[in-house]
Amino acid sequence: MSATEGFSTCALPNNNPDCILLGHGSGGRLTSELIRHIFLPIFGGDELAKLEDQATLPAPSPGTRLAFTTDSFVVKPIFFRGGDIGRLAVCGTVNDLAVGGAIPKYLSVAFILEEGLAITDLTRIVKSMKLTCDEVGITIVTGDTKVVDRGKGDQIFITTTGIGEVPAGVNLSIHSAKPGDRILISGTIGDHGVAILSEREGLQFETELQSDVAPLHDLAQLIIRECPDVRCMRDPTRGGVSGVLHELSEASKVSVRLDEASLPFRDEVRAACEMLGLDPIYVANEGKLIAVVPATDAERVLTAVRSHPNGRNAAIIGEVRAERRGMVTIRSRIGTERIVPQLTGEQLPRIC
Amino acid sequence: MSATEGFSTCALPNNNPDCILLGHGSGGRLTSELIRHIFLPIFGGDELAKLEDQATLPAPSPGTRLAFTTDSFVVKPIFFRGGDIGRLAVCGTVNDLAVGGAIPKYLSVAFILEEGLAITDLTRIVKSMKLTCDEVGITIVTGDTKVVDRGKGDQIFITTTGIGEVPAGVNLSIHSAKPGDRILISGTIGDHGVAILSEREGLQFETELQSDVAPLHDLAQLIIRECPDVRCMRDPTRGGVSGVLHELSEASKVSVRLDEASLPFRDEVRAACEMLGLDPIYVANEGKLIAVVPATDAERVLTAVRSHPNGRNAAIIGEVRAERRGMVTIRSRIGTERIVPQLTGEQLPRIC
Repeated sequence: MSATEGFSTCALPNNNPDCILLGHGSGGRLTSELIRHIFLPIFGGDELAKLEDQATLPAPSPGTRLAFTTDSFVVKPIFFRGGDIGRLAVCGTVNDLAVGGAIPKYLSVAFILEEGLAITDLTRIVKSMKLTCDEVGITIVTGDTKVVDRGKGDQIFITTTGIGEVPAGVNLSIHSAKPGDRILISGTIGDHGVAILSEREGLQFETELQSDVAPLHDLAQLIIRECPDVRCMRDPTRGGVSGVLHELSEASKVSVRLDEASLPFRDEVRAACEMLGLDPIYVANEGKLIAVVPATDAERVLTAVRSHPNGRNAAIIGEVRAERRGMVTIRSRIGTERIVPQLTGEQLPRIC
Repeated sequence: MSATEGFSTCALPNNNPDCILLGHGSGGRLTSELIRHIFLPIFGGDELAKLEDQATLPAPSPGTRLAFTTDSFVVKPIFFRGGDIGRLAVCGTVNDLAVGGAIPKYLSVAFILEEGLAITDLTRIVKSMKLTCDEVGITIVTGDTKVVDRGKGDQIFITTTGIGEVPAGVNLSIHSAKPGDRILISGTIGDHGVAILSEREGLQFETELQSDVAPLHDLAQLIIRECPDVRCMRDPTRGGVSGVLHELSEASKVSVRLDEASLPFRDEVRAACEMLGLDPIYVANEGKLIAVVPATDAERVLTAVRSHPNGRNAAIIGEVRAERRGMVTIRSRIGTERIVPQLTGEQLPRIC
């Protein structure tokens, strides 16, 4: 079926049930109907429509390297303010390609569905994935569906795997931060994690707090164009800003000092974190990137990032230092410096 | 950590619990320990050890195309006679690359772990994956781990995604079968599905029935070398031999007639299927391939396949015909022909 038939055709034949059965994962007629009546009409694309066991793709452009990344998504609830598990599953993998300097090209999607999932919910998620793919310009070329018995899964888990092309000359690495470098974040901290948690706990705020889930492919490319010497980029998802900076300080054998006053937060996030006893620098983001840039380029990159719709609240939040290798510290508003410990256990389970 | 340190180092530090906690999926210290003390020492490899958010890989050889495929594995039980979910997860994806004519190159692995999974079980599975990767010559270059709360998963689900290289000139497609072509299977039918089901049901046989789970990369390459005109290959997993032949007859606008007397079965499979009321041609295989070859090449390919340890019981089991498009039929031992219907619902849930 061609993509141009649009979403209007994506309903199962009348004799089908309105929820997922074990048979939808059997490889028989029900599986085939799910593919032909939901996945193919929504996702579209010639490669997927061939229904081979594997996609066959043109070799990447000469001089480029391949980027390859995978993530499973188990977020709960599966629909939340600002997004859903489908949009998250596309953005999460796109962003892991993007922060490596790659142009996202192809995506695979593997669903693990729980028996009883409403077909309408599955369809809504699949449509959301397609819209996000279109936003990025990435194509879903292959996939898989498994069904587990009721009580052995949780509605839907999605694993996406992405292939991208890294242009010649781009060599970002978390091992390459140098003392003096500045740490830039592309916007407010903690929006995704706090939005999910608020939804779970039924918290209300004056203004509605939304997940920041968004693809970062163009923001990442903008930074590389503006600053070819950018050391590395990361998206601070699970483990939050703290998690990324701990990995960075360990891998590059440096320390990072954050400046508390410069950390950008939404008022609702600050309020929720106070109420829930959370520190937002440990909380997941799904539409933010951290870039480590030479000090001399920092202000120029900041201006460029702020010119992008997804970067309006960008800030320089700290710097890389030689002393106290492997540590992350934060300088408070009154000038004292304290250690930011690495998160030990689970702060917010199933946030992505 | 380097791969040469071997498996002996793969134990968590003493202060760790003996089972998976939600915190192992948090992106904090527990996640990091799982990666550094289990995944890295066992899987090894320079690319994985970089711990970037994405693997960066050399572009494929000039003239080749990329093959790309994904599968989730939810088999129950996770350890079974002849294999385990880890070996299955590597073989399943390797085989989807192999039957497309690709040389398997890189693998990504995404784990969804249920809180409470024994670390010893995880370690055993990870070791099994590594041994299978070594058997194939494929490298695990990137991965992800998520943990879901107790009762929201089922011990372990694994999604593997593979990248392979399709040499110039290889163009296999399920759309290209032609009337007169012969259907070859590389060995006995139904071993995996019946082994799993016997284990679940506690059935005993005189000789132990084992899953046939095995990588098919070299068998597939052998067939391509022996018969460059091979139309297509498929591994008859979920949906079994019937599933593959239905897809083939529909995609190539032909019919397939099987010859009942030529179908290779183990005695234990025949006995178990009679007892359980199953038809083995619907039952999953995990170490068999079906090849569609021109009639003139069929005997030569059969001889070649039988010379391979994984192909000793290979047989020509049917032929492609022009009439009755889209149908699969079977000619019985007494010469009558009946229709093989497409499997509608679930025959054996969670078989892979």
